[in-house]
Amino acid sequence: MQNFEFHNPTRILFGQGQIAALAKQVPAGAKVLMLYGGGSIKSNGVYDEVKAALSGHTVLEFGGIEPNPHYETLMQAVELVRREQVGFLLAVGGGSVIDGTKFIAAAALYQGEAWDILSKGGKVIQSALPFGSVLTLPATGSEMNSASVITRHATQEKRGFMSRHVYPVFSVLDPAKTLTLPARQVGNGVVDAFVHVMEQYLTYPAQAPVQDRYAEGLLLTLIEEGPQALSRPDDLAVRANVMWSATMALNGLIGVGVPQDWSTHMIGHELTALYGLDHAQTLAVVLPGIMQVKRDAKRAKLLQYAERVWGLRDGNEDSRIDAAIAATRNFFEQMAVPTRLSAYGLDASAIDAVVNALEAAGSVHLGEHHDIDGNATRAALTLSL
Amino acid sequence: MQNFEFHNPTRILFGQGQIAALAKQVPAGAKVLMLYGGGSIKSNGVYDEVKAALSGHTVLEFGGIEPNPHYETLMQAVELVRREQVGFLLAVGGGSVIDGTKFIAAAALYQGEAWDILSKGGKVIQSALPFGSVLTLPATGSEMNSASVITRHATQEKRGFMSRHVYPVFSVLDPAKTLTLPARQVGNGVVDAFVHVMEQYLTYPAQAPVQDRYAEGLLLTLIEEGPQALSRPDDLAVRANVMWSATMALNGLIGVGVPQDWSTHMIGHELTALYGLDHAQTLAVVLPGIMQVKRDAKRAKLLQYAERVWGLRDGNEDSRIDAAIAATRNFFEQMAVPTRLSAYGLDASAIDAVVNALEAAGSVHLGEHHDIDGNATRAALTLSL
Repeated sequence: MQNFEFHNPTRILFGQGQIAALAKQVPAGAKVLMLYGGGSIKSNGVYDEVKAALSGHTVLEFGGIEPNPHYETLMQAVELVRREQVGFLLAVGGGSVIDGTKFIAAAALYQGEAWDILSKGGKVIQSALPFGSVLTLPATGSEMNSASVITRHATQEKRGFMSRHVYPVFSVLDPAKTLTLPARQVGNGVVDAFVHVMEQYLTYPAQAPVQDRYAEGLLLTLIEEGPQALSRPDDLAVRANVMWSATMALNGLIGVGVPQDWSTHMIGHELTALYGLDHAQTLAVVLPGIMQVKRDAKRAKLLQYAERVWGLRDGNEDSRIDAAIAATRNFFEQMAVPTRLSAYGLDASAIDAVVNALEAAGSVHLGEHHDIDGNATRAALTLSL
Repeated sequence: MQNFEFHNPTRILFGQGQIAALAKQVPAGAKVLMLYGGGSIKSNGVYDEVKAALSGHTVLEFGGIEPNPHYETLMQAVELVRREQVGFLLAVGGGSVIDGTKFIAAAALYQGEAWDILSKGGKVIQSALPFGSVLTLPATGSEMNSASVITRHATQEKRGFMSRHVYPVFSVLDPAKTLTLPARQVGNGVVDAFVHVMEQYLTYPAQAPVQDRYAEGLLLTLIEEGPQALSRPDDLAVRANVMWSATMALNGLIGVGVPQDWSTHMIGHELTALYGLDHAQTLAVVLPGIMQVKRDAKRAKLLQYAERVWGLRDGNEDSRIDAAIAATRNFFEQMAVPTRLSAYGLDASAIDAVVNALEAAGSVHLGEHHDIDGNATRAALTLSL
């Protein structure tokens, strides 16, 4: 295990009815800006519940934060925060709304050009407005971490930042509020969480059995519960377990002291930027190819994954690895997230475009060994044509 | 899964050499009181490393905090803190020193009679001095939780309290500092951590697969690494995994949203108070008996434990449960922690004394169903004569 520092100060309020806890969690007297997305919270009751819980507070609103939130939109919210001297932000939505709120929280107090936060990274952030979240879509883990990904719409640049100043003060996770999600978002969320775990797990052995077993525990839970979330959409217990798995997948804990490989996310971001695929769709396309292309470097962990996650103990090593990769692809397909570029109407020309974009951005030293370059990316995507 | 609130603000600094991080973690300008136990930190280099890291700070010292720390001793430290206007406490030691420091941190700012904190519970605590820890003995998990157990020496009353005000601000976990521990403390620590996991796990199924698998992951790690910590006492990687397992065993995470059964600890406390057994020794005696006596109520989880932790899949249900209980007892013995009262020179009269003490304290509604009474305790202990 490598040396590490771990600190996650986000308070989690989990369970049915927890939105009422906002009344105590949001600081009394603070002017609150409630941020949300396309308005689904108005049809599923979340909006009304939040407003009721905050009846003792002054609440402004800012809706319309997009999936893959736009820098341009968020800057409008920054203006509003400054003009109205907002003291507390409340993100109500999925990862995009929470990611966007993190950016707004930091940009509102940043003295320089706000794009610095994305071009230079979170290290320029010295402070941020406090904020909380009400999560409606389990997927990204943004509700309990300090990371954010923002897209500049004008140029289609997708950039991330991290800062210790943008942990949510609290996050409300009410699984009952996910029962009305469209199946596509449920499937996407499970795949996103699954791949988050894989990117912190599928590297090389690092004598970190706790982290390994925690990761495997999340993968097994998502494999068990994910399909049930689609087949039994009214099952609250299933939704609760999917929700908690997605939060735990990216709150930093399974990644302490171990190598990580975020190449699937990096490559996937380009597919979204170029062709508008859902974030999880890109992950489902990229990961199986990366597993195959890096099967030698990842051999020991692939065998561990095959045995502990998929119960594959028979046959020779290569056949077990093949079976584990196939099982991963099948699981994504079972979650109704296609794993082939062709399913999205894309062909080999898309691969060239993705590789060109990665090379233009200098993203050619990906993976735990910094050796996933343009050629490796091309090979991985070719396996998912 | 039941509704829950989770918030653990302790910063962890893990790995060899991390004591140097104290220079930045301890607030500049604060007058620091360094607290420790019997002085082993002076022979193993920890004391010198801490002093070197704090060379820019004003540091007072208070040594001599006992195992099962004494209220009377801690009150002397409270006097010192008040007299010297100490602003930050630094616990350097194992769970007893950290538990004691939590009490001192709360008592120093408490206006009433300090014993209230133990007699009325942590709810009387409105604030506490900030404190950090340097952990030298992985076992209790006190380095990343808000609980403390204190003994009033004069009356042998052992009382616990919890308060959100007594989370350590930070804890330094350097596994290299555990290499010089006596084998008895290593064995005790592994058993203590193992039983902490069991008390949050071995109840009844609560549709909480993440918590279950995290718990099983810790148990499996302790079973693998614990004996190696004894047989290969120079292996730093093994010590690191034992240390991280013990912290994760009781930082609250595996216990969210699930029933718990702390009867083994409650019964064990009386064995320590009456006969001076090490805390972990009492757990090793009590748990196998509780597993047997409550085998019907805990049946489903016992079978899950048998299969997932011990790989017991053959034979009928009762034989698998028997084998799992036997394996648990064997594991404790393998860690050189005897599981029989006779090994400590005690006989059936000790059982009467423990049951009487529990009944006098009103501790007769233990366990997840509140049905572990004097008779159940007697039956459990009789199985470990």
